[in-house]
Amino acid sequence: MSFRTIEWRDDKVIMIDQTRLPGEEVYCEYGDYKSVAEAIRGMIIRGAPAIGVAAAMGVALGAREIIADTHESFLRQLDNVCDVLARTRPTAVNLFWAIERMKRVAADNCGGSLDEVREVLKAEAIRIEEEDLALCKAIGRHGAGLIPEGATVLTHCNAGGLATAGYGTALGVIRAAHEAGKNIQVFADETRPWLQGARLTAWELMKDGIPVTLISDNMAGFFMKRGEITCCVVGADRIAANGDTANKIGTYSVAVLAKENNIPFYVAAPTSTLDLSLENGDQIPIEERHAREVTHLQGLPVAPEGIAVRNPAFDVTPARYIAGIITEKGVITGDYTAKLKALVKP
Amino acid sequence: MSFRTIEWRDDKVIMIDQTRLPGEEVYCEYGDYKSVAEAIRGMIIRGAPAIGVAAAMGVALGAREIIADTHESFLRQLDNVCDVLARTRPTAVNLFWAIERMKRVAADNCGGSLDEVREVLKAEAIRIEEEDLALCKAIGRHGAGLIPEGATVLTHCNAGGLATAGYGTALGVIRAAHEAGKNIQVFADETRPWLQGARLTAWELMKDGIPVTLISDNMAGFFMKRGEITCCVVGADRIAANGDTANKIGTYSVAVLAKENNIPFYVAAPTSTLDLSLENGDQIPIEERHAREVTHLQGLPVAPEGIAVRNPAFDVTPARYIAGIITEKGVITGDYTAKLKALVKP
Repeated sequence: MSFRTIEWRDDKVIMIDQTRLPGEEVYCEYGDYKSVAEAIRGMIIRGAPAIGVAAAMGVALGAREIIADTHESFLRQLDNVCDVLARTRPTAVNLFWAIERMKRVAADNCGGSLDEVREVLKAEAIRIEEEDLALCKAIGRHGAGLIPEGATVLTHCNAGGLATAGYGTALGVIRAAHEAGKNIQVFADETRPWLQGARLTAWELMKDGIPVTLISDNMAGFFMKRGEITCCVVGADRIAANGDTANKIGTYSVAVLAKENNIPFYVAAPTSTLDLSLENGDQIPIEERHAREVTHLQGLPVAPEGIAVRNPAFDVTPARYIAGIITEKGVITGDYTAKLKALVKP
Repeated sequence: MSFRTIEWRDDKVIMIDQTRLPGEEVYCEYGDYKSVAEAIRGMIIRGAPAIGVAAAMGVALGAREIIADTHESFLRQLDNVCDVLARTRPTAVNLFWAIERMKRVAADNCGGSLDEVREVLKAEAIRIEEEDLALCKAIGRHGAGLIPEGATVLTHCNAGGLATAGYGTALGVIRAAHEAGKNIQVFADETRPWLQGARLTAWELMKDGIPVTLISDNMAGFFMKRGEITCCVVGADRIAANGDTANKIGTYSVAVLAKENNIPFYVAAPTSTLDLSLENGDQIPIEERHAREVTHLQGLPVAPEGIAVRNPAFDVTPARYIAGIITEKGVITGDYTAKLKALVKP
C-alpha cells in the first residue's frame, strides 16, 4: 500500500485526512487527545479497526497531557480521557475494545513511575496498530480462498487499508486474492451519504492496481440479478453473539439482494469487532448523523431547504444472510453462536 | 399543484427545467423540435408520461417547421422529425407511444390543407397532455384506497407531477390519499445518481404540504426492517405483457426489500406505459447513461479521476414482486398476463 492511514511519529498522531480524499492526499498531525476525539467524530479517520487504533493513540497522547502527583490521580484523569474518546462514535465496538485495553494496561502497570506508564501506553497503542495490520493480513489469507478465479466481488463502504491500520478487512480479502494471482475485479458501491466507496475504496484499489468499477448503491441489485456479481465481501462495525452484524448503512440491503440472487455474502472482521455481550443485533446502538450529510454534497445543497431527513449511519444484517464471517483465526459458517464463542475462548 | 411541468403556449413548448430544481424554478421555451429532443435527452424534462407529452409537442412543433409542397413530402419529413425525437431515450415506452399516435393522426388527417394538418397535430399534442393529467387523477382515485390511514409510503425516483403532465402517478396515488384526508407521510429515496427523489419528489411534495422525509437509497431497507414503512409506490417506464416493470434504477432493490419484509410494493402507471409486444422484462432495452452522472455532483468530482463506472438508468422488477399495478382503469393484481391483456382490449 502506498499510503499510511494512521501512525505514531515523534509523539504525534498522524492521519491521512479521509474527508479530503480522493481530491487531496493530506496528512493531519495531532498532539493532544481532544483533537484526536474530534478527528474520530469528524471522520478524518473512520472504519471500525482504524478508529480503535486512533482511540488507543488518543489515550496514549492523553496520558502525556495529564499532570498528576499520584497514580490514583493519573488513573482518574485517564478515565476522563477515555470517556471523551469513547463518546465520539457509538456503533463500532473496536473503539471501546481499544480503550478498555489501554485502561487495563495502565492499571496493570502502575508499579513504575508515571513516565514509565506513559511509555507503556504509547507502546501499547503502537502494538494495537501493528497487530491490526497483522490481523488484516491473516483475514486476507483466510478469506482469499473464498474468492474464485475470475470473480467480480461487490463491496460496500470502505473496509480497506483506510479503515484499518492498513491492508483492510474486506479489501484485505480482495488484496490477498489479487496477490495470489487471481484475476478478479471489484464493484464498489459508492455508499451514500458519505461516499466511502466512491472516495476511498475506489481510490485505494486504483492506487494498488486492482480493477475497480464504481456504481451507485441502488445499482448493486441490477448487477446481481444479471449474474455479474460472484460474491459480496464487506467489513463490520460490531458483530453480536449470534452473528448479526452492524456495518455501514446499506449493507443489509446488499445482503438481502445477495440472498435473493443466490450470491454468497461474506463479512470480514477481526475478532475485536465481536461483542458477545450482545445476544443479537437489535441491541447494537445505531448512530444517526447530521442531516447535512444527505442534503449537501461538497457544501452544495442537493435537496430543498428545510427538508426532513433521516440519516442512520449503520444497519444490522441478520446472521441468516451471512455465508461466512472471515476472521484472523479462520472462516466460520453455520452456527455462529457456538462458533463465535469458541473463537474467543481464552 | 403550484407549478407547470410542460405546456403549449403561443406555439412554443414551455418546460420547467428539472436539471435546476430545487435550487431554481426556471422555465425554458422551445420553438423547434430539435431543441425539444435535446431537452428530453438532457433531462430538462423526464419521467415516462412527461416525455411522451414532450415528444408529442415536439412532433407538433416539427410539423410547423416542415416546408413541403405535397402531403407525401410532408409525411416523409414528419417521419424524420419523429425519428429524431424517438432516438432521445430508449427505455420509457410512452415516448414511442406518443410519437406513434401523432404519426397516425397525421396520416388520418391528410384530407385537408397542410396547415390544417399542423393544427390537428397541435391539438392532438395538447390533448395528450390534458389526457395525461386526467389519467393521473384516475390513477390517484384508484390507488388511494390502497394507502392506509397513518401510512408511511416509500417512493423511489420521481413519479410525480414533474414526471407527468401534472399530479403524478405514484405521487398521484399519494396526493389522492392526502386529499382524501388521510394522515400519511412519504419517505423519498434520494435516487442516485440523478437525485430525482432529493431534488424533485422532495420539492413537489413540500410545495404541496405533504409530509416528506428524505433518505439515501441504501437506507430504505433499514426502515423497512424496523417496521417504519407501510407500503411502497413507484412509477414505471415500461411494463411488459407479464407485468415485469422497468423503472428507475434501484426500483428492483426496493421491491426485493419490500418482499423480504412483507411490505406491499405497488406500481402506478397509465396504460400507455404497457408494452404488450414484449413477453417479459428481459426484452426491455435499458439505457446506460454517462459516467459523469456518477462521478460528479454539481460539476464537482466525488470519485478518483479515471475510475471505471457503470451507470444503468433503469432496472426491471419481475412481476412476482409487485402487489398491484395501479392504472387509470383500476388496480390489477395476480395474473398480470391475462389482466393486462384484458385491460387494453379495444
